[in-house]
Amino acid sequence: MPGISKKGLQMPESPIRKLVPFAEAAKRKGTKVYHLNIGQPDIPTPEVALEAIRNFNHKVIEYSHSAGIENYRRKLADYYAIYGIGIEYTDLMITTGGSEAITFALNSICDLGDEVIVPEPFYANYNGFAISAGVKVIPVTSTIDTGFALPDIEQFESWITPRTRAIIICNPGNPTGYLYSLQELLKLRDLCLKHDLFLIADEVYREFAYDGTRHHSILNLEGLEEHAIVIDSVSKRYSMCGVRIGTLISRNKKLMATALKFAQARLSPPTLGQIAAEAALDTPQSYFDAVISEYTHRRNILVDGLNSIPGVYCPKPKGAFYCVAKLPVHNAEDFARWLLAEFSYQEHTVMVAPANGFYATPHKGENEVRLAYVLKADDLQHSVEILRHALTHYPNKA
Amino acid sequence: MPGISKKGLQMPESPIRKLVPFAEAAKRKGTKVYHLNIGQPDIPTPEVALEAIRNFNHKVIEYSHSAGIENYRRKLADYYAIYGIGIEYTDLMITTGGSEAITFALNSICDLGDEVIVPEPFYANYNGFAISAGVKVIPVTSTIDTGFALPDIEQFESWITPRTRAIIICNPGNPTGYLYSLQELLKLRDLCLKHDLFLIADEVYREFAYDGTRHHSILNLEGLEEHAIVIDSVSKRYSMCGVRIGTLISRNKKLMATALKFAQARLSPPTLGQIAAEAALDTPQSYFDAVISEYTHRRNILVDGLNSIPGVYCPKPKGAFYCVAKLPVHNAEDFARWLLAEFSYQEHTVMVAPANGFYATPHKGENEVRLAYVLKADDLQHSVEILRHALTHYPNKA
Repeated sequence: MPGISKKGLQMPESPIRKLVPFAEAAKRKGTKVYHLNIGQPDIPTPEVALEAIRNFNHKVIEYSHSAGIENYRRKLADYYAIYGIGIEYTDLMITTGGSEAITFALNSICDLGDEVIVPEPFYANYNGFAISAGVKVIPVTSTIDTGFALPDIEQFESWITPRTRAIIICNPGNPTGYLYSLQELLKLRDLCLKHDLFLIADEVYREFAYDGTRHHSILNLEGLEEHAIVIDSVSKRYSMCGVRIGTLISRNKKLMATALKFAQARLSPPTLGQIAAEAALDTPQSYFDAVISEYTHRRNILVDGLNSIPGVYCPKPKGAFYCVAKLPVHNAEDFARWLLAEFSYQEHTVMVAPANGFYATPHKGENEVRLAYVLKADDLQHSVEILRHALTHYPNKA
Repeated sequence: MPGISKKGLQMPESPIRKLVPFAEAAKRKGTKVYHLNIGQPDIPTPEVALEAIRNFNHKVIEYSHSAGIENYRRKLADYYAIYGIGIEYTDLMITTGGSEAITFALNSICDLGDEVIVPEPFYANYNGFAISAGVKVIPVTSTIDTGFALPDIEQFESWITPRTRAIIICNPGNPTGYLYSLQELLKLRDLCLKHDLFLIADEVYREFAYDGTRHHSILNLEGLEEHAIVIDSVSKRYSMCGVRIGTLISRNKKLMATALKFAQARLSPPTLGQIAAEAALDTPQSYFDAVISEYTHRRNILVDGLNSIPGVYCPKPKGAFYCVAKLPVHNAEDFARWLLAEFSYQEHTVMVAPANGFYATPHKGENEVRLAYVLKADDLQHSVEILRHALTHYPNKA
């Protein structure tokens, strides 16, 4: 029988997948499982987007341009202008989710064995995209004790080699919720210019900045025009993960021309998703105000609640809708499995994502979990109580 | 300024792209351009699929399962059963177009420097997917004089090395329209079993078999269960290229488990497209009967017309909706450019795809073009007359 590639064998399983059978078994036993493990928001998709889909009146669902529907790209450039980001519509390309945007970026700038430096913990799928592209992820550790602030620039520099092609950040961050300050971004800019590296920023949570803070795009960093690559997606912004529409943005013309060749090979991003995404650009500001206010409320309930549990520590994130918490356990993966397989409180339990899967360095984050606050406030409140009881009864506490 | 990857530099331009500016210039001059160069059918998408989209009534456009909506997968297994292909729904995975299916297959079975053997001329984007995956395409030439029949098995064998991982065929073929006989497929089966290679068949044109011929799926070849990988797509079947829904099918469990890890990294195929594609499974047989009859008519008009032009030779294909014709010119790319830039007949001209771009061997197919018969019969008839006049007046005839 012909075998599987080394690449395929190296592909990691999702950090949550191992737990899925336990969650399913718990549900079969009649236990209600609160999912704090996933980032599928329950916020309704904006009505304007749903309406555009229901009003689809073409006779043929055709390919779009490989870089996306031109009108959508033009309107999208106007959207970025609202954030003070001055780009032409030719500086952006519509992709099949942010996933494809990062794959195009890696393929366009990296060859087999090249390296990208990524502060950890990071979005676990970066590993998968890197393996697909034959690229090595070099992690630089940020720690929960500093609230996952940018690691020292010296740390980045110590890992730069002739094979280093880029630094990748997620801002605001999944899984940490950390929002980089302008100061931190300027340090990264100087580093990338000094070593002639690309800076790739995954900014899909741009709108999710709390407590009056402001997200700073790397597209606004002076001097970084040829080095800045932004990954974007409408999935979380408009709560429409299923449309699979993302964006690759860069003012580097050579990079965009190269990415377009990869885009042409796969013909076109999804047409129906683009129609929904284009319509979603007309979402009224009141939608975002309500969403930000809702997420701020949820974050406070979850994070304040977690910090009220003895032995738990969770920095309060300023962005996205995730947080990473340190638990008083030896192994958060064992704890997460125990929550599903052996524990329940009033026939309820919670599913959490062990944070270890978000680190590339072995044994990092073993007592940490990632929690998404995409459930209703009451459910989050109740989830905190479940965790409080669970940690009281868990036999393998640290 | 940081540079582009070797991989990016190697990515080919689409064989048609170079001509696009000339087509645009012709249109600006007021010349009507008949597009024989592209495979975007004008056939309407089945009403059931459009209706499913218009009836979309969820509040949130959510991710689907990474392998696709389970109900769609189950119904799809029933669809294959109609063609006598007995597979479980777990033997298939929904992908973002056939493009993603082939990428997952290559990534799952090939490492950098591995080789796949492909009869040429072949669908040009196979090159792009192979370069993305770091895989080398080894062409085996089929010729217009045999109507693009399967090259001798000895030719395949002479190219097999320890790095060879698979043979890739497209059946019915793009760009040739060639439909492999069961005899030819059995030869390929024996070859793959002998050398323990995967056989990857792109069967997206399965329904488009003419003159009472029947398409044979490699999934029905006894003994090939662990070696057969099928790429499928709803793009052409239901004239809905824009939904970006394909399928990867194999009974090889290890392969499918590996492909699923790549699928999980990109989260989900497009949800809206899957809804349209699932509904399209209820397309009545009368739709296909009408489509097959229409394409047969169009093919006859185009191919018989071409063969009536002095010096032109075009084998009559049994499948898909493309044909490759040999023209009495030295260089078909020059001729295609001339058609757009310097020629018109009654203020009309045609755009054709130089076939050279579908060969991996340099200088092959330089006097051939690919033509798609996706235009209405009258327009095809007229296009043949335009070509007849053009070839009379073309200064660089062979």
